[in-house]
Amino acid sequence: MIANTSVKQKIRKYSNGQLLDIEDTIVKEFPLTIFVNRQEFATMVCTPTHFEEMVVGFLASEGVIRIQQDILSLNIDEDAGFAHVMLHTEVTTSQQYYTKRFIGSCCGKSRQFYFHNDVRTAKTSTSIQTITPSQCICLMNRMQASSVVFQETGGVHNAALCTPDEIIVSRTDIGRHNALDKLYGYSLLHKIPVREKIIVFSGRISSEVLVKAAKIGVGIVLSKSAPTDLAIKLAEDLNITAVGFIRGDSFNIYSHPERIVLND
Amino acid sequence: MIANTSVKQKIRKYSNGQLLDIEDTIVKEFPLTIFVNRQEFATMVCTPTHFEEMVVGFLASEGVIRIQQDILSLNIDEDAGFAHVMLHTEVTTSQQYYTKRFIGSCCGKSRQFYFHNDVRTAKTSTSIQTITPSQCICLMNRMQASSVVFQETGGVHNAALCTPDEIIVSRTDIGRHNALDKLYGYSLLHKIPVREKIIVFSGRISSEVLVKAAKIGVGIVLSKSAPTDLAIKLAEDLNITAVGFIRGDSFNIYSHPERIVLND
Repeated sequence: MIANTSVKQKIRKYSNGQLLDIEDTIVKEFPLTIFVNRQEFATMVCTPTHFEEMVVGFLASEGVIRIQQDILSLNIDEDAGFAHVMLHTEVTTSQQYYTKRFIGSCCGKSRQFYFHNDVRTAKTSTSIQTITPSQCICLMNRMQASSVVFQETGGVHNAALCTPDEIIVSRTDIGRHNALDKLYGYSLLHKIPVREKIIVFSGRISSEVLVKAAKIGVGIVLSKSAPTDLAIKLAEDLNITAVGFIRGDSFNIYSHPERIVLND
Repeated sequence: MIANTSVKQKIRKYSNGQLLDIEDTIVKEFPLTIFVNRQEFATMVCTPTHFEEMVVGFLASEGVIRIQQDILSLNIDEDAGFAHVMLHTEVTTSQQYYTKRFIGSCCGKSRQFYFHNDVRTAKTSTSIQTITPSQCICLMNRMQASSVVFQETGGVHNAALCTPDEIIVSRTDIGRHNALDKLYGYSLLHKIPVREKIIVFSGRISSEVLVKAAKIGVGIVLSKSAPTDLAIKLAEDLNITAVGFIRGDSFNIYSHPERIVLND
């Protein structure tokens, strides 16, 4: 695994007033270009692991597929950095709206923001899952402790799909969205029901991360870092519990605090 | 400034085994949709400061404009979150290639990677600027010390355009590329020669950050965090000195170490 995600490289280190040539561990960054039905669709710059999960999760997240069975074939050409995906159907509007903002009609509620493809795929959570504070802290500690890449290179994000008691799968990537796409792909490929699951994440909860969690379908997102105000508004709107700054023995709950309960 | 970049909000805090409702400072995240010649071009999710710099820097970075004079008019509608840009000319290929990968012919060199628009705008540095280790450390400390938003909310990236001795301009954003686009826009709007300047950056040096520095036109990039292997290859290729992990009294030089000299 490590051989795939980082490389050894000669660097020059400045320390104690001196310059020294030493060997260091550098995190890998790999461009994977996805072709859907022989058309170039997108390029993801990623940590080169779990390509299939990432591509499936990304295409589901963009609304190009809904379930694994929508895919006829998926071939990864690691040498060229290409993923070739053939679908049973044509790609319709998704690509055209890829970076287009959804500009809704005005309304009295808080100012909302989505991209076009998000409106089609982000789901309002119906999860009834709850979790205790000590379970929150325990899941974060276990995810971070298990990430060897992070400890060696200090340059990646970790994301895990969990129950309150255990980590189902944990993924690492230099791109925060890629780590989440890998979880999404894993859940689709292994047909794991996600409604009562929890996402644990090392990075900031931006609007993009929050919307991605809604697309995956969970009701609780636990982060080591801060959320943004837009992410909190979207979390309120999509009925997701957003928890941040899980450090040591404390954390903050930013939305739908009813899912965090002191006792089981 | 602070009023614009963060908001006060009620949250629930877990600490010492108890749940308490308190007020906290949350970093703002603002969607700005850019229309070029009345066509929707892109949406940037950003910290809502220095919109004009950011839009100018982004359009230059994408190769849509080269200098400020290419712009006929630029109007920011903060309430709607729109930037309306009129150019003297038509937008040509840029939008169409926005997310398209440049797939070059094979060659014996290290595997290269750019997006189409990067190939048109990323410049190989001809900078002859050098800098001492203590200047590197001093610039990083001064940039970080001056960022109030970071200290209050812990959720943003800082970037500064510098000479070896001083910070010319420092910008903050939740998006790493936005912070750099703001610097780029500032340098174009104020007609600052950049070839012998230095970029100081709080975040990781990804390929995207490195290419953005090349577009801006500097020869030295100083970061608090780690670079990726792809960023180091691009830095070698584009003749840029990449320095990372500037922490305390030490740092690492990953490419073109000849610009870091022990004495002036």
